[in-house]
Amino acid sequence: MNFCSDNVVGVSPEIMAALVECNHGVAMPYGNDDRTLYLNNLFSELFETEVLVFPVATGTAANALALSVMSEPYGAIYCHHQSHIHCDECGAPEFFTSGAKLLTLQGENGKINPKDLASAIARAGIGVVHHVQPAAVSLSQASEAGTVYSIQEVEQIAQVAHSRGLTLHMDGARFANAVVTLGCTPADITWRAGVDVLSFGATKNGAMAAEAVVFFNRDLAHSFSYRRKRSGHLFSKMQFLSVQLEAYIRNDLWLRNAARANQMAKDLAAKLTALSKIMTLCHPVEANEIFVQMPEQVIVNLLADGFKFYRWDGEDSKTVRLVTAFSTTEEDIAALVDAARKYLQKCQPENVAG
Amino acid sequence: MNFCSDNVVGVSPEIMAALVECNHGVAMPYGNDDRTLYLNNLFSELFETEVLVFPVATGTAANALALSVMSEPYGAIYCHHQSHIHCDECGAPEFFTSGAKLLTLQGENGKINPKDLASAIARAGIGVVHHVQPAAVSLSQASEAGTVYSIQEVEQIAQVAHSRGLTLHMDGARFANAVVTLGCTPADITWRAGVDVLSFGATKNGAMAAEAVVFFNRDLAHSFSYRRKRSGHLFSKMQFLSVQLEAYIRNDLWLRNAARANQMAKDLAAKLTALSKIMTLCHPVEANEIFVQMPEQVIVNLLADGFKFYRWDGEDSKTVRLVTAFSTTEEDIAALVDAARKYLQKCQPENVAG
Amino acid sequence: MNFCSDNVVGVSPEIMAALVECNHGVAMPYGNDDRTLYLNNLFSELFETEVLVFPVATGTAANALALSVMSEPYGAIYCHHQSHIHCDECGAPEFFTSGAKLLTLQGENGKINPKDLASAIARAGIGVVHHVQPAAVSLSQASEAGTVYSIQEVEQIAQVAHSRGLTLHMDGARFANAVVTLGCTPADITWRAGVDVLSFGATKNGAMAAEAVVFFNRDLAHSFSYRRKRSGHLFSKMQFLSVQLEAYIRNDLWLRNAARANQMAKDLAAKLTALSKIMTLCHPVEANEIFVQMPEQVIVNLLADGFKFYRWDGEDSKTVRLVTAFSTTEEDIAALVDAARKYLQKCQPENVAG
Amino acid sequence: MNFCSDNVVGVSPEIMAALVECNHGVAMPYGNDDRTLYLNNLFSELFETEVLVFPVATGTAANALALSVMSEPYGAIYCHHQSHIHCDECGAPEFFTSGAKLLTLQGENGKINPKDLASAIARAGIGVVHHVQPAAVSLSQASEAGTVYSIQEVEQIAQVAHSRGLTLHMDGARFANAVVTLGCTPADITWRAGVDVLSFGATKNGAMAAEAVVFFNRDLAHSFSYRRKRSGHLFSKMQFLSVQLEAYIRNDLWLRNAARANQMAKDLAAKLTALSKIMTLCHPVEANEIFVQMPEQVIVNLLADGFKFYRWDGEDSKTVRLVTAFSTTEEDIAALVDAARKYLQKCQPENVAG
Repeated sequence: MNFCSDNVVGVSPEIMAALVECNHGVAMPYGNDDRTLYLNNLFSELFETEVLVFPVATGTAANALALSVMSEPYGAIYCHHQSHIHCDECGAPEFFTSGAKLLTLQGENGKINPKDLASAIARAGIGVVHHVQPAAVSLSQASEAGTVYSIQEVEQIAQVAHSRGLTLHMDGARFANAVVTLGCTPADITWRAGVDVLSFGATKNGAMAAEAVVFFNRDLAHSFSYRRKRSGHLFSKMQFLSVQLEAYIRNDLWLRNAARANQMAKDLAAKLTALSKIMTLCHPVEANEIFVQMPEQVIVNLLADGFKFYRWDGEDSKTVRLVTAFSTTEEDIAALVDAARKYLQKCQPENVAG
Repeated sequence: MNFCSDNVVGVSPEIMAALVECNHGVAMPYGNDDRTLYLNNLFSELFETEVLVFPVATGTAANALALSVMSEPYGAIYCHHQSHIHCDECGAPEFFTSGAKLLTLQGENGKINPKDLASAIARAGIGVVHHVQPAAVSLSQASEAGTVYSIQEVEQIAQVAHSRGLTLHMDGARFANAVVTLGCTPADITWRAGVDVLSFGATKNGAMAAEAVVFFNRDLAHSFSYRRKRSGHLFSKMQFLSVQLEAYIRNDLWLRNAARANQMAKDLAAKLTALSKIMTLCHPVEANEIFVQMPEQVIVNLLADGFKFYRWDGEDSKTVRLVTAFSTTEEDIAALVDAARKYLQKCQPENVAG
Repeated sequence: MNFCSDNVVGVSPEIMAALVECNHGVAMPYGNDDRTLYLNNLFSELFETEVLVFPVATGTAANALALSVMSEPYGAIYCHHQSHIHCDECGAPEFFTSGAKLLTLQGENGKINPKDLASAIARAGIGVVHHVQPAAVSLSQASEAGTVYSIQEVEQIAQVAHSRGLTLHMDGARFANAVVTLGCTPADITWRAGVDVLSFGATKNGAMAAEAVVFFNRDLAHSFSYRRKRSGHLFSKMQFLSVQLEAYIRNDLWLRNAARANQMAKDLAAKLTALSKIMTLCHPVEANEIFVQMPEQVIVNLLADGFKFYRWDGEDSKTVRLVTAFSTTEEDIAALVDAARKYLQKCQPENVAG
Repeated sequence: MNFCSDNVVGVSPEIMAALVECNHGVAMPYGNDDRTLYLNNLFSELFETEVLVFPVATGTAANALALSVMSEPYGAIYCHHQSHIHCDECGAPEFFTSGAKLLTLQGENGKINPKDLASAIARAGIGVVHHVQPAAVSLSQASEAGTVYSIQEVEQIAQVAHSRGLTLHMDGARFANAVVTLGCTPADITWRAGVDVLSFGATKNGAMAAEAVVFFNRDLAHSFSYRRKRSGHLFSKMQFLSVQLEAYIRNDLWLRNAARANQMAKDLAAKLTALSKIMTLCHPVEANEIFVQMPEQVIVNLLADGFKFYRWDGEDSKTVRLVTAFSTTEEDIAALVDAARKYLQKCQPENVAG
């Protein structure tokens, strides 16, 4: 049973079927096929506004390319200190922007807040030549802590950003999970709340390798095509990216997959915490990730049993991250909970709920 | 009938089947799956020497990442003036190397020659601080003119490069086509001839989106993983890249596909030139590309009939490029030749062979 | 009276005289003049070890070029969160390194400490492809808070850095001030304590525009010349940079200038704090910078009187920075202290010392 | 006697005097001194139009910074294949533009021509994502061959550039020499002819280290300050750059210096070619550089006698470059001519004019 990440599972059957089905005849390359050309329409419909959309194959590419058109090389991009773009992309934003600086903000539960942002920008020295110039804000929805920004939170952040001349990027590697949790439309939590550019993730939620950079602020997109090509992210057989995105949003597959993953996370969290009050959650469970503190011996025994997951923030951490996916089953959950109960009873019988 | 490029066709059935078959269970992400971990062995066997191999999804990524470890930012990379890295990658090598300079060489039939290379390096000012420093040579095999470097030609270029401290890169977007033409082993035309790093193409010859950067000179590879991640080319569900490469080389699929494409090109060239002496080839046909001069009216009529291909080197060029692929059929060839004959007879009946 | 910075004063008379004296005859350009060629000897003698030294004209160039040979583009450079390289160079280190990341550390009085550094490196994920790779540490001597690292502090930081494979850079824009305070040799506080590369400042302490990048770890220097040229920092009439450095260290001018500036700072601090206990220092005064808290009305009145200085860390800050220079006089100090006393008595008579 | 370059001589006495005179009191740093703030007015007057001007210390910095605001990273900059920016700046334009491509043009006597330029742009593929996008043209005035573009030539090049959406840069390292030769106003050969940005050189013509980037097209300048800072080219004691520029243009010193250098070059050329018809000029002498072919033995003997100059384009070249400067004297010229006559007579008496 592998709870390491939502990218350890394979491809949604519907998406694999679409790939197979798409493989006949010829198609013009580099995005000039009919399927890709239609994506702007498809996403404009999905988001209830005219958007420009560009498929890429990885989340890092989506984020870094998006940011590369949102910040000059001498710009500053504000983000949470635990954000994926800052911690887990080996400097991709710096590479794609030719050296912009990521300035990090604290914030509970993996989320930045408008007050800290406003304060940071106020200290930045806009117009002062010695300092990198505030250019953009990037937030992760759902966040790296498995939490979700409310519409109002995004609105407030957008307001701070826009009023100071910054644009707003949303890293939506787990966008579907957030939308399901919020129960809102994709439009409500993006452009209507002030998002300029969205990295619309699909890979973690059932695609093979497909993400879409969605421009609500279409003026920002004018150099995107060149930057995508120049970074090796323009696929010759582009239709095989586009068909994944198409199948992903057709019949709400993306929402169904995310709903499943979210439900499994919620169940797992509830069952683990019910085992004992020493099994505590670090953050509210609002998407498909659980951060839970466990006794060392439970961790060790679960790993020895073949359960796979990561300790969070260091090799000797007692916090583990458990990630569910569209294909996680109730049996998976039950197996993990049963094993945890067993090892808890062994090491701390007095603390385990009957 | 689409002769625009070998990337207009879809995926080889064997490769699509492998993708489908591979989609079950879980796999560790980012290349830590068993399939990817085995690739070094697979390619070491294929090339009869110990290699390090890194899958990526596009040829531009393969080339630019390879060059990024072969040249410092203040380096010079020598290549043919028509090479893909210079003309068709929107500056990707400059981006990935942080600003190295591509210095171009002339050379007949799309190939650089050792003499020009030696002469260019001699004028470069090695050790002189005002000049970019010769770092690498890149050649395309098969070349952008549809021709193939002989083993001896590669050896001579490698000798010039290595004796001056440069390393040798081979852009093998159509490597399979070259190997088939040469009738040699993959080892003979690469490391045995002096190649340090190969961009081993698969996409143009049947993969969905998969290339491999193969390091014969393994010392050069030490920073490759970071650079791949940093540029967004590390796939989370990496096994779906690796399985393409696996299926591509299994049972010599890559050679069979290339042999088919080459044969179709050869047939097409023979039949077109047999039509009339005014149908002349610009280069020997040694792979799966034909560059042929045609009367303007023939071009116009073929395009109007729905045949798809590009005029080469300018909108009013009378040279067209015709590319065959693993899926090109004898019927495709016959249809094009028949149409060409018809329009030739219309416009220049006196020149058409009976 | 201008206490804004030590760069508001002009050029030390001895250095200006050297410039004038140097201006006759011809000299080979780009550092091939005798004067520049002798600099390695001169600095090797000064530092009691064989060094390689490269003159440049600005501190930002010195720091960013030094760091560019100490970190790969995918590297991380650790520094204090208030360090000049992070806050005041508009992203120069990111530019020159092609996108390395500056990771900041807290630390009292403008200084990083070995424990925080060790802890940060431990969390960095060395060898993990998702994370930028720890490459270098940079500390400012004297620090941006006007404090000085002891020899032992540098040794401990160097030990942490070197034992994890990182190299150590010292931003010595105010190196002379630190050496005077420590009363040690230049060697003791640099290579003997573990520094690999020093930005040896001269501009703030009497030069017109001259800094030297000094390599104790000479292996790091091999690409420096190309990087300096490529960034436009190789002067054609280089002798006019070199002669400034020569005059700067001749007869200990650099130490005499710094001693003067330090003494003036010490006097000023003593006299201001003696005025009232509400005039408090933010940091110990160990070089030529004072950070002192003052009542708003005192600040406003001093500025209105034409005294020039900056509020520190924000427009409404009650902390001001006062910087002394080699040319600061006792009269300058007395004038500021007298004015401060006058305005203190006006606004808070009960708090002013008789 | 040193004819290697115009940068082997020192500083014009008037400029050195201005540096000395300027050294008193305090001045706000980083260009906020009165002198620097007045430069826009001074240069606007000189060029008879409102300009924005930015001092830097080297020609490479001036050129590369100028180009960095004229081309996106995915842009192409057209220049002569022998241009300084392409051959002699170790890739600085690529560095400052984050990887733009310099595309070279042939052209007699070191000058590009509008026809070649138009043809190159026509083949570039504007709007096609695979190709770098034409962004700017850079020409050297005077050229690297010691020749000068006429006003009409610049106008025609500007017309080609502007009509295709490119901007025009002029590398004026020897701008004064060109203006003197043309006998026109600085305005006539720059913005009136269509130049958008000028690197206005002073170092080669008497300054210690000072160049000015002059924006006629002021919209292009908006990010220049940040880029200058970020590249380490913002001087803290900026007044010492500005005062050089001020003294350089005061009382037409720049034109007087250039006139002297030009006259010396003309005389030298006339006298050398009068010696023998085997002493042939490679290019018309229109500025302060002579490219002359000499018998090998003459070259060898002159070098042995201590005359300094470079063979051009290779170690065994029979072409030498002789550069005159503002301080070159008639005696210098006579000494070289006499020596050349002597050695010519020795080796080829039959060819030497009585």
